[in-house]
Amino acid sequence: MSNSTPTHFSFFPEMLAGETADVYFLRTREVLTREGIDPIVTMEFFPGRAGVLCGIREACEFLKLALGEVELTIEAMDEGARIEPKQVALRLAGRYLAFGIYETALLGMLSQSTGWATAARLCVEAAGPIPVYSFGARHVHPRVAPILDYAAIVGGCVSGSTPAGSRLAGRDPAGTMPHTLILIIGDTVAAAEAFDRSMPPEVPRTVLVDTFHDEAEESVRVAAALGAHLHSVRLDTPAERGGVTVDLVREVRARLDLAFGRESGSRGVGIFVSGGLTPERLRQFRDSGVEIAGFGVGSAIAGAPPIDFTADIKAIGGHPVAKRGRIPGITPNPSLHPVVW
Amino acid sequence: MSNSTPTHFSFFPEMLAGETADVYFLRTREVLTREGIDPIVTMEFFPGRAGVLCGIREACEFLKLALGEVELTIEAMDEGARIEPKQVALRLAGRYLAFGIYETALLGMLSQSTGWATAARLCVEAAGPIPVYSFGARHVHPRVAPILDYAAIVGGCVSGSTPAGSRLAGRDPAGTMPHTLILIIGDTVAAAEAFDRSMPPEVPRTVLVDTFHDEAEESVRVAAALGAHLHSVRLDTPAERGGVTVDLVREVRARLDLAFGRESGSRGVGIFVSGGLTPERLRQFRDSGVEIAGFGVGSAIAGAPPIDFTADIKAIGGHPVAKRGRIPGITPNPSLHPVVW
Amino acid sequence: MSNSTPTHFSFFPEMLAGETADVYFLRTREVLTREGIDPIVTMEFFPGRAGVLCGIREACEFLKLALGEVELTIEAMDEGARIEPKQVALRLAGRYLAFGIYETALLGMLSQSTGWATAARLCVEAAGPIPVYSFGARHVHPRVAPILDYAAIVGGCVSGSTPAGSRLAGRDPAGTMPHTLILIIGDTVAAAEAFDRSMPPEVPRTVLVDTFHDEAEESVRVAAALGAHLHSVRLDTPAERGGVTVDLVREVRARLDLAFGRESGSRGVGIFVSGGLTPERLRQFRDSGVEIAGFGVGSAIAGAPPIDFTADIKAIGGHPVAKRGRIPGITPNPSLHPVVW
Amino acid sequence: MSNSTPTHFSFFPEMLAGETADVYFLRTREVLTREGIDPIVTMEFFPGRAGVLCGIREACEFLKLALGEVELTIEAMDEGARIEPKQVALRLAGRYLAFGIYETALLGMLSQSTGWATAARLCVEAAGPIPVYSFGARHVHPRVAPILDYAAIVGGCVSGSTPAGSRLAGRDPAGTMPHTLILIIGDTVAAAEAFDRSMPPEVPRTVLVDTFHDEAEESVRVAAALGAHLHSVRLDTPAERGGVTVDLVREVRARLDLAFGRESGSRGVGIFVSGGLTPERLRQFRDSGVEIAGFGVGSAIAGAPPIDFTADIKAIGGHPVAKRGRIPGITPNPSLHPVVW
Amino acid sequence: MSNSTPTHFSFFPEMLAGETADVYFLRTREVLTREGIDPIVTMEFFPGRAGVLCGIREACEFLKLALGEVELTIEAMDEGARIEPKQVALRLAGRYLAFGIYETALLGMLSQSTGWATAARLCVEAAGPIPVYSFGARHVHPRVAPILDYAAIVGGCVSGSTPAGSRLAGRDPAGTMPHTLILIIGDTVAAAEAFDRSMPPEVPRTVLVDTFHDEAEESVRVAAALGAHLHSVRLDTPAERGGVTVDLVREVRARLDLAFGRESGSRGVGIFVSGGLTPERLRQFRDSGVEIAGFGVGSAIAGAPPIDFTADIKAIGGHPVAKRGRIPGITPNPSLHPVVW
Amino acid sequence: MSNSTPTHFSFFPEMLAGETADVYFLRTREVLTREGIDPIVTMEFFPGRAGVLCGIREACEFLKLALGEVELTIEAMDEGARIEPKQVALRLAGRYLAFGIYETALLGMLSQSTGWATAARLCVEAAGPIPVYSFGARHVHPRVAPILDYAAIVGGCVSGSTPAGSRLAGRDPAGTMPHTLILIIGDTVAAAEAFDRSMPPEVPRTVLVDTFHDEAEESVRVAAALGAHLHSVRLDTPAERGGVTVDLVREVRARLDLAFGRESGSRGVGIFVSGGLTPERLRQFRDSGVEIAGFGVGSAIAGAPPIDFTADIKAIGGHPVAKRGRIPGITPNPSLHPVVW
Repeated sequence: MSNSTPTHFSFFPEMLAGETADVYFLRTREVLTREGIDPIVTMEFFPGRAGVLCGIREACEFLKLALGEVELTIEAMDEGARIEPKQVALRLAGRYLAFGIYETALLGMLSQSTGWATAARLCVEAAGPIPVYSFGARHVHPRVAPILDYAAIVGGCVSGSTPAGSRLAGRDPAGTMPHTLILIIGDTVAAAEAFDRSMPPEVPRTVLVDTFHDEAEESVRVAAALGAHLHSVRLDTPAERGGVTVDLVREVRARLDLAFGRESGSRGVGIFVSGGLTPERLRQFRDSGVEIAGFGVGSAIAGAPPIDFTADIKAIGGHPVAKRGRIPGITPNPSLHPVVW
Repeated sequence: MSNSTPTHFSFFPEMLAGETADVYFLRTREVLTREGIDPIVTMEFFPGRAGVLCGIREACEFLKLALGEVELTIEAMDEGARIEPKQVALRLAGRYLAFGIYETALLGMLSQSTGWATAARLCVEAAGPIPVYSFGARHVHPRVAPILDYAAIVGGCVSGSTPAGSRLAGRDPAGTMPHTLILIIGDTVAAAEAFDRSMPPEVPRTVLVDTFHDEAEESVRVAAALGAHLHSVRLDTPAERGGVTVDLVREVRARLDLAFGRESGSRGVGIFVSGGLTPERLRQFRDSGVEIAGFGVGSAIAGAPPIDFTADIKAIGGHPVAKRGRIPGITPNPSLHPVVW
Repeated sequence: MSNSTPTHFSFFPEMLAGETADVYFLRTREVLTREGIDPIVTMEFFPGRAGVLCGIREACEFLKLALGEVELTIEAMDEGARIEPKQVALRLAGRYLAFGIYETALLGMLSQSTGWATAARLCVEAAGPIPVYSFGARHVHPRVAPILDYAAIVGGCVSGSTPAGSRLAGRDPAGTMPHTLILIIGDTVAAAEAFDRSMPPEVPRTVLVDTFHDEAEESVRVAAALGAHLHSVRLDTPAERGGVTVDLVREVRARLDLAFGRESGSRGVGIFVSGGLTPERLRQFRDSGVEIAGFGVGSAIAGAPPIDFTADIKAIGGHPVAKRGRIPGITPNPSLHPVVW
Repeated sequence: MSNSTPTHFSFFPEMLAGETADVYFLRTREVLTREGIDPIVTMEFFPGRAGVLCGIREACEFLKLALGEVELTIEAMDEGARIEPKQVALRLAGRYLAFGIYETALLGMLSQSTGWATAARLCVEAAGPIPVYSFGARHVHPRVAPILDYAAIVGGCVSGSTPAGSRLAGRDPAGTMPHTLILIIGDTVAAAEAFDRSMPPEVPRTVLVDTFHDEAEESVRVAAALGAHLHSVRLDTPAERGGVTVDLVREVRARLDLAFGRESGSRGVGIFVSGGLTPERLRQFRDSGVEIAGFGVGSAIAGAPPIDFTADIKAIGGHPVAKRGRIPGITPNPSLHPVVW
Repeated sequence: MSNSTPTHFSFFPEMLAGETADVYFLRTREVLTREGIDPIVTMEFFPGRAGVLCGIREACEFLKLALGEVELTIEAMDEGARIEPKQVALRLAGRYLAFGIYETALLGMLSQSTGWATAARLCVEAAGPIPVYSFGARHVHPRVAPILDYAAIVGGCVSGSTPAGSRLAGRDPAGTMPHTLILIIGDTVAAAEAFDRSMPPEVPRTVLVDTFHDEAEESVRVAAALGAHLHSVRLDTPAERGGVTVDLVREVRARLDLAFGRESGSRGVGIFVSGGLTPERLRQFRDSGVEIAGFGVGSAIAGAPPIDFTADIKAIGGHPVAKRGRIPGITPNPSLHPVVW
Repeated sequence: MSNSTPTHFSFFPEMLAGETADVYFLRTREVLTREGIDPIVTMEFFPGRAGVLCGIREACEFLKLALGEVELTIEAMDEGARIEPKQVALRLAGRYLAFGIYETALLGMLSQSTGWATAARLCVEAAGPIPVYSFGARHVHPRVAPILDYAAIVGGCVSGSTPAGSRLAGRDPAGTMPHTLILIIGDTVAAAEAFDRSMPPEVPRTVLVDTFHDEAEESVRVAAALGAHLHSVRLDTPAERGGVTVDLVREVRARLDLAFGRESGSRGVGIFVSGGLTPERLRQFRDSGVEIAGFGVGSAIAGAPPIDFTADIKAIGGHPVAKRGRIPGITPNPSLHPVVW
């Protein structure tokens, strides 16, 4: 995976206009404005569960764009840091009316991105040294597919499947070939050859081998046809056929070795695994010792629930306050550092 | 809740450009284009689990915008319909290159919206005749907060908290008053009076009563101060103080009755409940028989996992096909009907 | 399955000589003989768990052979009857020394056969109208493989895989073709054709289709090659490839229909299922409604534990007795009837 | 237990004639013969679960008898060895038609004997230094009762209850006295005295003490009557009276000590325990520290399910092959060694 | 069981002096006295769990004795009534200082007696038509043993084992004979005969038969010795010997029938069961249909936890009040009725 | 807590008269007296479960009072000692008629006191260094409330709430102020001031703060009003308001610190916790590290079931005996020592 300069987050007009805010923040703005009240407040954002913090970079870019020249003191933990329940991830201090309507948006960015990054981290830890790719774009709304891929990379994935998302993190998108291509061309080998003809050299030739025939059989056919051009085969066996298992990977490797010789040929062909992978299954593959070139993970990351964040006003005009149930005043956290722009 | 004309979905340029697609669809487009292959294919979209179908309206608006004059036959089930596992929700037939790169986006719209609508339906069923509002915008990325509110309304919620989302469904956004307003003004009654002064008459005066003092005590104070202007009080007691319980609602009602008389005064004051509500807790409230004006539900809807959809090519050039593990040919579904534009 | 006259059970010399008895019965014979004691006793045999009684026919044939002209009163329940815990299945009355050393053998016949017949019944009930075959000979010692098949047929199986066992019940043995034949011939279609050439017409042409290629693919190839000669295909997919599932059967049927037309050709080809079938899995297949020609069940019958029987002396010289913990005297059971020879 | 020379296994004509084989192996022989195909194949036998390997000795004796002068290369692991899942226990190489019809018989010998030996090992390990006897002949068909006792001894039992089985392993059969003897003689002490009179000196006087009276009471009576002739008492209390427990053994020992003095008399009387013993109960007895002379185990060994074995052709004419789902070619196993005859 | 006039409860001086009260009530009396405050208050007593109300009679006798001429309005539910969680069992209205220090004592009477009566009811319901006796005095402190027996009778027991307790409920105490008597006399039959000689005719001759010999054996011996004098035998087999089971009762009955004839003799001998009985075991005996003369239940009643009661002030000087968390004012309960003395 | 001289146990006439005994012991006394039998017997008392032994002191005081000059040898373990199942806690040797009727009473004292002391120990261990008080008098009958408090102190509690019970152990009773006092005075601060005026200086001023207003709010008000007189606040939040939690304690501390400064004022105010405390919850508080002045535990001690004791005659006239199921003769226990008076 090549690394390039990460791109900036883009923000849609309705977010900046407060149209995605809880409406009661808009009403609060109206009330306070009419009452002429606008104190300096300190607001803290913290999660309810532990995880891998993500969304801080986007939140800061968002505040910068939304507030422009307005003065606001920002302290934040690092993107990708480990965060504990109730640990303060972000602390804002400034005139309330300057940023009050963005509370919903900031919470949402942090909650969902942290949920995804945390789930990705669990997968990456389970996979050990084998690289993990975020293949979950299809499970989330396309508006947030790039956010998902970015968060998955913050959580430890090598890359994601969407161009927009991978580039947010300065990575190239990753992908192989869909069943669609093979079905339309009508034969796995023919599809592989067409792919090989069309793609620029930097795209790895990873051929999906479960569309028409037995995986082991197709792997040998494809390896024979593409020769040294072949980077790897991808196993994505559907649940209806037992899914991808350790035994299947082991057999495909054995039949490739049998066909091409372990040393001269087959070793050069990687086996890429996808389809319903969870941390438990990733750990099984890893613990089995079978040689795997990479994992494509979808639902286990994309379907992770948000890690809910809460925002509390902890000081007004310099005096400690809190609603009932919370501790008044600033919560100490040495991991916070000033954010400048 | 007033009903107005629903607004249209908006689509961001990167979605239309395929930047949120799995990159292998972009590569497939490139391969097929170079090979000169572009058959008429029939593609079916179906979910893996049962639920309340949502996202169909957005998907059709998206295709209309993206394809323009290109010919495509669309059959779809109704937005909001009950859908079974593997039941076909959407069937497209046309030249593959016209719509192939949008597979990821269409799957994502259906998966996430159906997940949310289904979770909302569970809450609405649990709540019985008591209205449920979607208050989960803060748990999801602001890009999709409007999609969440729309899906929650399709699932049966009366309205959502975001202006953008509620209006997609032709509803007014719903909200009360945040702890922030009360903390900044410094007293619940003073905040309630300021709110009453500032808001237009159509906004219900629902006052949050757990910020500074005991909920029952504040409810009586607020009811005394606002009199007939008061629509309801909102209980949002944090988990640190035991959360909102049936007993608490019952006691607040009893103390209001004691203070103002059951018939003349207190009956007119509703009690609105929010905070960590789940279908189980909604059912407890409902079964208890306590009188409740409405529920605000957040995580139980917003944190619902997507209901994953899959897209399969089932015919090419009129001939039944399928990858291994699937049944070749069109899957019968009498609930599908043609979509025209 | 044709029905012929059942053959008789054969008994090995060591059984008749008491060499398979618990040695303490041999010693008891020695003690009583030397003491000159040989009363008329009544002995009852009953199971500890409910089940389908089996072994009675063999027990009676054994006693007839072993005792010859010696007088013994036998009462027994019917082979294949439903039996309850502690219900008396067999009652013997006669001089103790005439039959005492056979207690172990009689208990063993009843315990193991009843265990197998009961397990078979569970499978047959789960399979509903679809015929079940006993394919478990490989899991038990060859000495008892015929007993297993006989008991399975008593429990409701149509037939078993061993000639000796099936004929005990007056049935023809059932079998298809092993992986061995296909591996040695080297191709499924070639093996099917050789089988077709060699077998007499009454042997159904059931071809195993999971040896080399994808099951659906091979089914179509075999059906094309054998045409009307083909009776059915057998799916025996190993656990390493997900086992046989409802989805797989459904897909094979669909692809056969697609290839040959539902009416004209494919309907005539049955699908036979084997491999790790349990009552739970049999019920899934049956409940799914997929069309299945038969099930081959192995471990679920052959691996069933014995249903232990106990023999109690309940009367001596006409007087009720029993050891501590048991009720003295004859246990009433209207299902018993005299056995004559 | 004295050790003598083990006897040979006997094989019934129907086993040698293939009458206990799965009929499809007989048909395969017919097809291949008619087609004139008979390659040299390598076949491997391996279990699905871990255990104590048993049946190898019988399998080799069987092949020797069945094949006579025909050439066959046999490699096998040791009888009684610990075996892992999928580890090769037996490898045959030779002309297929020479041994193909015996696959069912060989699998059955290995599966059932290994199941029994493994269960016996669990009991022996649980019992620690206290000897375990196989008393399960009554739970299995008399045809295999000797096989059961032999396998139990391979698994670690000191001996079995059947003459035929114990002698296969070169042991004397073990037994005490049945309830029958006592019931017929009518008194425990009288039965013990008759037994003592009749039995040769090498048979230990182990008297069953739960038939008529309380176990502790009878033990004292029997010990008084037989004096130094008494080897041990056997407790076999039925489930209806609470079964044998640690407390009961402890009390019988205490009452014997009280009656005869711990040093001078009672220590010489052993306590033998039987009745529903499982590894868990054996471990309780052992962990309790009560002094026990031996355990008689029935169902826990005899009712153990087979450990299923599978036979795979892994090479034909020297070339690696395998059906789908298995790794082609010889599976390495340094524990195999050639078997010569 | 004969019924006589119930005796009155006795109250120890330290209870009347407030020495068993929570000391803070004594301090409250001191504070209010010094401050000159003594309003008329209404106090309600209610349980946290459902049950069979007991302790009301004692509470009222206690208040009568403690308050003498002081005016107090008492409303109460009936002793033995079914009571629901939070249902008011007792309501007091009067000058607080008159009864305030007795809150602890009243709560304790109600909590513990209701706990015991409720547990007794569960046993009685499980036993169906078979009478249940409270034999739990040995499990509780002798100060409360009579209270236990009284509560058990309120819950449905026929009688208890203590004279003091049974007479509180107007019943004669019930008992058979302890192991002690038999051990000291040295023989069950001799003890039975001595008992028969000494006891007045109205005491039933129920003989314990598990002390020295097998229960069935002793039952027959005792029945032979006492003849028509024998009322019943008691089985109390200890856990070390398997406890009393349905099978044991059935066997004892069968052996009595065998010895004396079902019609002429044995039918007249009852079987009384005790030892570790729980509602579950009582139900097993009852469902088995074996004939049982009575059950003696100890721990299952005596070890039942209290059903905690709470006392709340709900009105002061006629005005509804309540602490936070409770509903102010009188709680309606039509089952309450005035108590007069 | 000051320590003074423990008071003696008092025994009610009905206990001494045998009116609380199982009636069969009274009958045994009558039989043996009439038969002229009164051997010297040795009786052992032992528990069925492990625990903290309590009741020994009372049992010995009781025997001393009941037997007076009659000779009896007593051996006992120490009050408060750890005891194992079946370990002998008390051994009596003497003429049976002298003490036989007290078996029930002695068992009851030991069973219930040991049950309570054991439960108290679990709480004390869970609470670690934080003192635990027995506040369970209201859950048990007032006759045994002092016994409960004494046993709780033996188990490790600092003191109990009843004067009679605490003084048995030589401790002063502990208590704060009930809701009743605050409800009657009508305001928490006013009640605290009245309490402060009336109580002698050695009574700590611990003010209950959950009656009318939010706990944190009241704590600050009370601390402001009483100043240095205030010893602590007590949190007893009812389950209807979430109970007392670690978060609540932490918040009350924080708001006190905020109001009065951590060093100068708030540190001097303790926080006392009560209400539904169990060992699990005590451990949570302790593990959280929040500063707590003490715990008041009720049901978790008072509702503990008795630890049942059994009494066995193990020798008569110096000869070992035992009923069936028990080991005859004295059970060795080096922890027993002679009790003299």
